[in-house]
Amino acid sequence: MYYPEPISKLIDSFSKLPGVGPKTAARLAFFVLDMDEDHVMEFAQSLMNVKRNLTYCETCGHITESDPCMICSDAHRDKAVVCVVQESRDVIAMEKMREFNGMYHVLGGCISPMEGIGPNDINIPSLLKRLQDDVVQEVILATNPNVEGEATAMYISRLLKPTGIKVTRLAHGLPVGGDLEYADEVTLLRAMEGRREL
Amino acid sequence: MYYPEPISKLIDSFSKLPGVGPKTAARLAFFVLDMDEDHVMEFAQSLMNVKRNLTYCETCGHITESDPCMICSDAHRDKAVVCVVQESRDVIAMEKMREFNGMYHVLGGCISPMEGIGPNDINIPSLLKRLQDDVVQEVILATNPNVEGEATAMYISRLLKPTGIKVTRLAHGLPVGGDLEYADEVTLLRAMEGRREL
Repeated sequence: MYYPEPISKLIDSFSKLPGVGPKTAARLAFFVLDMDEDHVMEFAQSLMNVKRNLTYCETCGHITESDPCMICSDAHRDKAVVCVVQESRDVIAMEKMREFNGMYHVLGGCISPMEGIGPNDINIPSLLKRLQDDVVQEVILATNPNVEGEATAMYISRLLKPTGIKVTRLAHGLPVGGDLEYADEVTLLRAMEGRREL
Repeated sequence: MYYPEPISKLIDSFSKLPGVGPKTAARLAFFVLDMDEDHVMEFAQSLMNVKRNLTYCETCGHITESDPCMICSDAHRDKAVVCVVQESRDVIAMEKMREFNGMYHVLGGCISPMEGIGPNDINIPSLLKRLQDDVVQEVILATNPNVEGEATAMYISRLLKPTGIKVTRLAHGLPVGGDLEYADEVTLLRAMEGRREL
């Protein structure tokens, strides 16, 4: 009622984003009003492209423009190691490390009985199918280090036990650059358990 | 390089918004990826509409879909009082009060020698022109209560002195709902100066 309709619609759209309340949404909408027309059109276009041009890789579940994704179709990567992560964002975090040269499998979530998400609601069946051709020798479980992530890792590791494939989990311990005094008890305990000789 | 192109373009666009850093931008872009297609298209459409369908009212400078704006073309409003504000957002803040029934004049900024913004760079000439037809009897200066806003109000009040039009300024004092102990000295001083008998 107070805003011209195009502005109030844009405020509505911004309000749907996480962490954006009505005041921030209004501030962003007015900021857009003062932006270059070119930049705004680019913004609108990229919003549409993200929905229209992106899909999930049939093999690994990572977001991609073409199926199979760039990682799955890269002949230089080591097909014997598969790193299992929860989200596409996690693939990008791993890739930024510039150290891992294996394949990925994106679950698209984690097992969460509280939210009614079971093993078949995430990409676990496709993982099992993928492991059937005897190429993969190690599965690295890189789900989040929280309750649901741990439970999902546990579930998958038990599922893979009979196949004889080596199953590993990322190490727990102190984050680099952090302060020991601020580490929680559980992290500290895991860091002690995982201590290595120098 | 790490993100598929449509995602990285969307991250770029989000990063241009105020208060959105690269991590938040990535989080928002991935959120959009999981949003309903309809909502995303609506978002893109409203971005384009804000640029395409909105213009500034020739009379008062407020953003509007049609010129003159809804407020300027409303016959029920009191044309004898003009409230001068810095931004269109301020018009909306005043309108939300539901008490003021006069007209507005949006300066589109304030005088700021530091940023090289002089009186002729904001809508002061159009204000003077508007006051020539002897309809307006009071100009309420509602620029922001900070250094630039005060200076702009001062400048306009001096400019209007020869015309004989009544020029008023919004009261300074304690914000309603605030704590006296947290009020700064200047605000408290103004609140004392402006005290009223009960």
